[in-house]
Amino acid sequence: MSVEQLLAESGLKLPPAVQAPPGLELPFAWVRLHGNRAYASGHGALGLDGAPVGPYGRVPSQVTLEEAQESARLSTLSLLGDLRRALGNLDRIAAWLSISGFVNADPGFPGTTRVLNPCSELVLSLFGSEVGAHARTAIGVTVLPLDLPVIIAAEIEITD
Amino acid sequence: MSVEQLLAESGLKLPPAVQAPPGLELPFAWVRLHGNRAYASGHGALGLDGAPVGPYGRVPSQVTLEEAQESARLSTLSLLGDLRRALGNLDRIAAWLSISGFVNADPGFPGTTRVLNPCSELVLSLFGSEVGAHARTAIGVTVLPLDLPVIIAAEIEITD
Amino acid sequence: MSVEQLLAESGLKLPPAVQAPPGLELPFAWVRLHGNRAYASGHGALGLDGAPVGPYGRVPSQVTLEEAQESARLSTLSLLGDLRRALGNLDRIAAWLSISGFVNADPGFPGTTRVLNPCSELVLSLFGSEVGAHARTAIGVTVLPLDLPVIIAAEIEITD
Repeated sequence: MSVEQLLAESGLKLPPAVQAPPGLELPFAWVRLHGNRAYASGHGALGLDGAPVGPYGRVPSQVTLEEAQESARLSTLSLLGDLRRALGNLDRIAAWLSISGFVNADPGFPGTTRVLNPCSELVLSLFGSEVGAHARTAIGVTVLPLDLPVIIAAEIEITD
Repeated sequence: MSVEQLLAESGLKLPPAVQAPPGLELPFAWVRLHGNRAYASGHGALGLDGAPVGPYGRVPSQVTLEEAQESARLSTLSLLGDLRRALGNLDRIAAWLSISGFVNADPGFPGTTRVLNPCSELVLSLFGSEVGAHARTAIGVTVLPLDLPVIIAAEIEITD
Repeated sequence: MSVEQLLAESGLKLPPAVQAPPGLELPFAWVRLHGNRAYASGHGALGLDGAPVGPYGRVPSQVTLEEAQESARLSTLSLLGDLRRALGNLDRIAAWLSISGFVNADPGFPGTTRVLNPCSELVLSLFGSEVGAHARTAIGVTVLPLDLPVIIAAEIEITD
């Protein structure tokens, strides 16, 4: 079954392009296509209207582990939405290569791996273990754009 | 007009190679060239003598948003200087692919996107929207080398 | 002399695959091979039994500079161990391209460059200045998986 068919049958909805907060310029590409590569910028959680969604803040003092995991899942859907718009079709993804995950974390929080797992699991469930396999980093940082709890970037190989 | 011509007419000056603080070893390449790729290490702001320049510290408690934006602009010039030394000529850049921006930020500071925008805008103004388009991350971190407020790394496609 | 011969003569031991703490899922590839690229996930220090090793915590308040440098060296050996398992042979590495180093650091700690230097030096000593040359970032972050002091990821070109 193709990725697009799997997505359709799963009931998962990909959000539209982000609605940036008023006055915030975004002078970069959400997905940069060049040759056989797609580079995805850092994506956060969006609602189905394209507006960023919370909760906002640090894990775990302001955002629970479970909320951060849901934010990671939504960030992945947001990234998939931009990939589909850039590629026309998610079945043009030949191989996930690396995923860079960043978590807005309190010092001493040891669970960034757990926060990012829903991202990796969603990619593997849709693309399978050959195309979907990826290297990953899960880094706890001081703050992220808009004070989002999770941001996910990726490098991907694509076909024509 | 070529990028080198645009730069010459703009009056922008690219700094020389970094003058590392005494005793600090830098056992890596500021720009790693291989095949059709250039990988640029994390670059900070330099003066026109190649010495790192402040202000130093965290945004916004120790460094203002505007100062951090100027540091991002200077970091980009520093990166362009190393690219020119490695390539001989900035017109060998075929495509910007991704820019990784790191901001020395206080917890809760939501403006890393704004800090990095002068970097993206400078790249786009010199290279145009086709060659200059890039994916980007803008991550707030605890501290950066020398306590600089901004560091910028990049992956770029080059031609012979 | 080949890298494998150098390693054998150096007495350096590469650890086995990581023994994840009970209950922690790791749904990603420690090394993702595709085409002529190897992408290595963020690696931390392992003992020779594959179990993560401390000290844990932030540099320098909980982990000294020297301990963090040793953790960076061990992280590099851990990364080399996974590369060997993925490639069969470290001599298939054609070029190191970029190394992303993350240090679990206190705000204001200016020494992330020094923490990462043993990683770069080890790579250069084994692979030489042509194959081993690499771009690098050395970023101070809030927290890392398992509260490790150092994590190292890499992108590498490989041959068949």
